Amino acid sequence: NNTQTKTYKIAVIPGDGIGKEVTPWAQKALEKAAEGVADFTYENFDLGAERYLRDGAILPEDEEERIKANDAILLGAVGDPRIKAGILERGLLLKLRFDLDQFVNLRPSKLYKGVTSPLANPGDIDFVVVREGTEGLYCGAGGAVRRNTPQEVATEVSINTAYGVERVVRYAFKLAMKRKKHVTLVHKKNVLVNAGDMWQRIVDKVGEEYPEVTHDYQHIDAATIFLVSDPSRFDVILTDNLFGDILTDEAGAVVGGVGYSASGCINATDEFPSMFEPIHGSAPDIAGQNKANPTAAILSAAMLLEHLGFDDAAAKIHAAVEADIEELGSTVRSTDQVGADILARI
Amino acid sequence: NNTQTKTYKIAVIPGDGIGKEVTPWAQKALEKAAEGVADFTYENFDLGAERYLRDGAILPEDEEERIKANDAILLGAVGDPRIKAGILERGLLLKLRFDLDQFVNLRPSKLYKGVTSPLANPGDIDFVVVREGTEGLYCGAGGAVRRNTPQEVATEVSINTAYGVERVVRYAFKLAMKRKKHVTLVHKKNVLVNAGDMWQRIVDKVGEEYPEVTHDYQHIDAATIFLVSDPSRFDVILTDNLFGDILTDEAGAVVGGVGYSASGCINATDEFPSMFEPIHGSAPDIAGQNKANPTAAILSAAMLLEHLGFDDAAAKIHAAVEADIEELGSTVRSTDQVGADILARI
Ligand SMILES: CC(C)[C@H](C(=O)O)[C@@H](O)C(=O)O
Ligand SMILES: CC(C)[C@H](C(=O)O)[C@@H](O)C(=O)O
Repeated sequence: NNTQTKTYKIAVIPGDGIGKEVTPWAQKALEKAAEGVADFTYENFDLGAERYLRDGAILPEDEEERIKANDAILLGAVGDPRIKAGILERGLLLKLRFDLDQFVNLRPSKLYKGVTSPLANPGDIDFVVVREGTEGLYCGAGGAVRRNTPQEVATEVSINTAYGVERVVRYAFKLAMKRKKHVTLVHKKNVLVNAGDMWQRIVDKVGEEYPEVTHDYQHIDAATIFLVSDPSRFDVILTDNLFGDILTDEAGAVVGGVGYSASGCINATDEFPSMFEPIHGSAPDIAGQNKANPTAAILSAAMLLEHLGFDDAAAKIHAAVEADIEELGSTVRSTDQVGADILARI
Repeated sequence: NNTQTKTYKIAVIPGDGIGKEVTPWAQKALEKAAEGVADFTYENFDLGAERYLRDGAILPEDEEERIKANDAILLGAVGDPRIKAGILERGLLLKLRFDLDQFVNLRPSKLYKGVTSPLANPGDIDFVVVREGTEGLYCGAGGAVRRNTPQEVATEVSINTAYGVERVVRYAFKLAMKRKKHVTLVHKKNVLVNAGDMWQRIVDKVGEEYPEVTHDYQHIDAATIFLVSDPSRFDVILTDNLFGDILTDEAGAVVGGVGYSASGCINATDEFPSMFEPIHGSAPDIAGQNKANPTAAILSAAMLLEHLGFDDAAAKIHAAVEADIEELGSTVRSTDQVGADILARI
């Protein structure tokens, strides 16, 4: 250890499938980019579908406590088609987001030179979605009566608080100040009048504190249109948990596939560690074949560095990824080849 | 009146902005296509933003009763930026959908020859979204406490019943039998576990009665990706009220703009009249300029004819629209010119 550098403790959850193949490359990129300014020690957590299938554990309390003791979390991908939908999502991924109060789900979308967008005229796409991460329909506040009968009623409840909304709105306006100074609130306030009205009022109020930042509003349905017809209009998209989930996947498609999209689940008060992950899933169909693109995982390492305050180190990763994609993005390469190519440029 | 033809009573709600310009063309197309097989009498309803701004009325009870006494409803578009979001939506559009129990919101998406999709390689797009129309987050079952304080909590409740889900699921499978025999359920069952699980169970159950129809499942976020990356994979998309709203707008964009998309709010038991409308809004920016494309409104007339059982008459409209778009779709024409051109071909 260089005596000038601080050492950060990173919890690593490679997870399942290609998660295990791409996460080591995120770690290598992290180390190389931060050489001389930060060191990392890792604590590995065996969590995800394989662990669950083996011993039934999803997120044991003591392991969660150990995760909390780290400075940040790197996550690969979690999931396996053999497991009923919802079990790992609610028990592991969302539990971490909620328990660690990761209220900003930050998802940049950028169309890199060298990547083919499915759009005929994509334009210059470079926006960030600021998705609320701890409220809304993700609370798990639903229920059902008379299951499996013709009289079944199932509910899902979206809970939204001024406290929870205001902090993510502030984050979005602060972020906009470092970017093109424009925030677009996306909601469905013409139907979800209670939550939508509150979001709009809080955006209007916080917006007054940022006179340099313009803001507008779009319904979620209209936003899905603009992501296809005119994605370069966006700078910072601010939205709730569910709409953010939907928009970021569509955005991932528009910039050439979720293989280039990373994501940060951020606790902006640093009370608990933040978590960084590629947007893609565990992709069981190509797992274990050294085929998965590690670029999104490597970009999640850059987000982790930015979160810890190492903007220059993060910039090195971004530059390396951009150069790699521009030059080699269209060639078929193995996971390890892409990883090594990007690493060589850092 | 030809003594062989039956006369149908149509409630017409032209609404606001371009709604008033395109609806007359829907009526003309209706009449011409059904010549010799059906006649129509119209009852006009002055409802929408202009009426509301004039006398505060949204949907007076006696007018709603008169609407109910018709055989079907043609709607133009409703809305005006001067009116707070939610008032007309909840008070007029959604009130009609709910009170008239229009539980199938049917939205075909087709890429016509001659229309430029924003996708580089759109493929052969021709699917229908069967959106549930009377449940889910559209119930208006939310509320708020401590409004305008830092302690505000706002909720939105999604109510889903086996009764409501099963009837729309049956509709989707029946429709698939007339098409490519494939149903894709779209939900978010890994997070909305109560409602999602019920939808999936009912789809599995009803699916057993239709052994010729295959069905699969996609999360809403994944579906927004496929609409961009591979839209031709879809045949019948079956989904809830909110997801259907989102997907159909994205689908409209993918097939070249909501200007070609019509929609039916269908009461499949015929207890109350069904309602047909273009998907686009009132477009105040181009209203009154004879600029709006009446194609979607004309296509909504075709859906009305299909609903009344006049498949041949509907086919005439479809053929006329297809020929018009293929030949003249890329030329700039006025509302009246497009209307006249299509009419001449019916
Ligand atoms: C896996 C799932 C719970 C998750 C979400 O819905 O948030 C995923 O889609 C995402 O976007 O990170
Ligand atoms: C206007 C609005 C209430 C409506 C909806 O959300 O259903 C519209 O977007 C639609 O899709 O018909």
